[in-house]
Amino acid sequence: MKMAGAKPEVSFIGLGAMGFGMATNLIKNGYKVTGFDVWKPTLEKFQAAGGNIADTPAEAVKGTDYCICMVATAQQAQAVLIEGNDPALGALPKGAALLLCSTVPCAYVQGLEKQLAELGRGDIRLIDAPVSGGAARAADGTLSIMAGGSDDAIEKGRFLLQEMSDPYKLYIVKGGIGAGSNMKMCHQVLAANQILAASEGLGFATHLGLHPHFASQEILKSEGWAWMFENRLPRMLDPEYKPVASALTIILKDTGIITSEARRFGFPTPMTSTAEQVYFSALGRGYGPDDDSSLIRLYIEGKGKIGPVKGLAEDDQSKLALVVGLLKGIYLCSAAETIAFAAKCNLDLDQVFDLCINAAGGSTMFQTVGPEIIKLARGEQLSTGDGESFKELVQQLQEAIEEAQRVKAPVYLATQAFTLAQLALQLAPETAGNVSRAAVAKVWGL
Amino acid sequence: MKMAGAKPEVSFIGLGAMGFGMATNLIKNGYKVTGFDVWKPTLEKFQAAGGNIADTPAEAVKGTDYCICMVATAQQAQAVLIEGNDPALGALPKGAALLLCSTVPCAYVQGLEKQLAELGRGDIRLIDAPVSGGAARAADGTLSIMAGGSDDAIEKGRFLLQEMSDPYKLYIVKGGIGAGSNMKMCHQVLAANQILAASEGLGFATHLGLHPHFASQEILKSEGWAWMFENRLPRMLDPEYKPVASALTIILKDTGIITSEARRFGFPTPMTSTAEQVYFSALGRGYGPDDDSSLIRLYIEGKGKIGPVKGLAEDDQSKLALVVGLLKGIYLCSAAETIAFAAKCNLDLDQVFDLCINAAGGSTMFQTVGPEIIKLARGEQLSTGDGESFKELVQQLQEAIEEAQRVKAPVYLATQAFTLAQLALQLAPETAGNVSRAAVAKVWGL
Repeated sequence: MKMAGAKPEVSFIGLGAMGFGMATNLIKNGYKVTGFDVWKPTLEKFQAAGGNIADTPAEAVKGTDYCICMVATAQQAQAVLIEGNDPALGALPKGAALLLCSTVPCAYVQGLEKQLAELGRGDIRLIDAPVSGGAARAADGTLSIMAGGSDDAIEKGRFLLQEMSDPYKLYIVKGGIGAGSNMKMCHQVLAANQILAASEGLGFATHLGLHPHFASQEILKSEGWAWMFENRLPRMLDPEYKPVASALTIILKDTGIITSEARRFGFPTPMTSTAEQVYFSALGRGYGPDDDSSLIRLYIEGKGKIGPVKGLAEDDQSKLALVVGLLKGIYLCSAAETIAFAAKCNLDLDQVFDLCINAAGGSTMFQTVGPEIIKLARGEQLSTGDGESFKELVQQLQEAIEEAQRVKAPVYLATQAFTLAQLALQLAPETAGNVSRAAVAKVWGL
Repeated sequence: MKMAGAKPEVSFIGLGAMGFGMATNLIKNGYKVTGFDVWKPTLEKFQAAGGNIADTPAEAVKGTDYCICMVATAQQAQAVLIEGNDPALGALPKGAALLLCSTVPCAYVQGLEKQLAELGRGDIRLIDAPVSGGAARAADGTLSIMAGGSDDAIEKGRFLLQEMSDPYKLYIVKGGIGAGSNMKMCHQVLAANQILAASEGLGFATHLGLHPHFASQEILKSEGWAWMFENRLPRMLDPEYKPVASALTIILKDTGIITSEARRFGFPTPMTSTAEQVYFSALGRGYGPDDDSSLIRLYIEGKGKIGPVKGLAEDDQSKLALVVGLLKGIYLCSAAETIAFAAKCNLDLDQVFDLCINAAGGSTMFQTVGPEIIKLARGEQLSTGDGESFKELVQQLQEAIEEAQRVKAPVYLATQAFTLAQLALQLAPETAGNVSRAAVAKVWGL
């Protein structure tokens, strides 16, 4: 249920692909929204959509009790809130709610809370509220939101969180300021790996000689399904990888948050670190502003340049099985990395699971194996029971890797997943038996 | 000492960059050599250098008691020896020595021995004799050679092995046919990683704003020295990466032998597998025929495309320390992967060490830490004593990775090395103390 009655005024800083949709959704729901963005054409568009516009952050927030900040980075947040030109801080009314929806490191938002107190603005009700779900859901008000903050702040800001999110996808994360960012960060482990996996999987299919339209439709029906694959697919299939719905630089920023925070904890992120290197290579080629689905370019180039190659798989069904095996291996390891990292961040793992399967990180593998990995994280016994065993999954992954080697196709993530599976088998030889696929998570110390 | 007196006739199949030098060296040493190659211009050049030439493999080997085969792949060897047009087998005199100097999988040369017996040619004295050292040493007769075979075969072929090798770099590897190939394969773990490390290290230096001429000279004087870095350096610095001394396709072939043989053993090769993916990407870009030093292109592109970036290191010495820290981390992990794989292949680890430090795989790190890793492989106690500890090395590697992230430079191998170091610390928390850097090898099960 959305809130009824008179709607308060809201200021909105940062009207990019996500922010614009979120802000105009509030307008559609009857709020008077004053927007600010450094990019003037966006402001004009926002005005045309019924918003008020401001020339500076301070002007936007003046007299409004609710401020939503949806800039791209922690540096930008710091600038518009405190350190830049005519920043918001001085103009925010006493006791105002400040919802920081940008994806930032936990350390940043915790530092911001401290800095507000030091600057005598402990009255501001800061909410750490990163979102997930993409531009379409932003505009629909059906985002996934993970919010952390004091009870007082959450109470004041809850109606806005509700306006922007799907009723089943608003997560109030225990742990106060920073907990929302940690939750988002752990979710983004799935995103960082699965965005690239979409390109790697479909690129591999192409190397095998499968038609990408046919292969992708089959993948969507298989255990190799992932939200990211389905979401990126139309743009991967577009000859120009258009429209730009989420630029490479966005996921690269999130990836950097994951790997740098993980290093701070001494926590290994073999999957995300591998993805990050491929993202850096793509950035170096000038693909930064392009849609991240365009990374399939890195995986399909070379036709006619790699010399004669021949795989073993002859028919479409065998080839598809290899592609699905490759994707499942990647998704298994990204699930394990996510849950192990969430455990390291002391997040509520049931909440992590519920959030991830309903957000952009969802995949069939996560849905199936996630609960088993959570058991492992809690020191409970793994099942040895039904369904595909770890050994069977590793066998499929190995067959995919071997075929990729024959056709000389790069498969960075699958190769890393296979290495991790081998290390898990070596670490715990009992996993060589018919145990749950969750056993791979032993590599991350679970 | 080279053999004195009358020199027997020798046939030589495969006159590529290595084979041509090896064959003409024999001519210079007074042998009558009959050469065969599928590429006619090479044959003309060989004739001009004093060789006899033949139109087919059978014609080349007819009546000569010694045949050296130096083609590029196992497939080519199979063709010229047995299955191709007018192959050598039928024409080889009874009891002839057949030196297979190509780098091939152990499984291939063992299969070849079996096939010879099945075809009624068990009389042929097969020697498995892959080489290392590059084209210049091939032409000088100062290669490293690792030879396996029956005592009888080695006895017959030893003088030729001696003609082609440096007297201190001829290794008769215990274990019969296949042992030479296994030794070469383990050595190539170092090669596969350190060829790419040269590009990664100098590429990273470039991203940091160091002049590559300056940086490389400093690296050569540091603990970040490696034979491959020194050898590839002139070509990395050449604007066209010329001359082509060793094509990408050559090291990619060896890399494929390593990773596929390792999978057969269930042995993880996280470093080489990472390198292989980068090689596949380079192949897809059409760099296959280019010198492998040209892979630095993958690491330096993007100037002006990656947006404004800024590292923390200000002065040249701090930047150099980061580059050396990066290289040391990679060399440590490639040393561990090599020795652990050699142990898995049941090779004599003292011989492996002696061979590697004197061949193309040598590095200061291998020289320093190799003996400690061998101790670990033998279940002996690691020293806790002098010099840099594991923790200190990991710290330097981490600083390098973090700076690479700041300047958005891809560092695939260093990232993998850091992940492995983290896993080693997690596996064996006691390694967090002041133990030997060899502790990283625990990841490979040592």
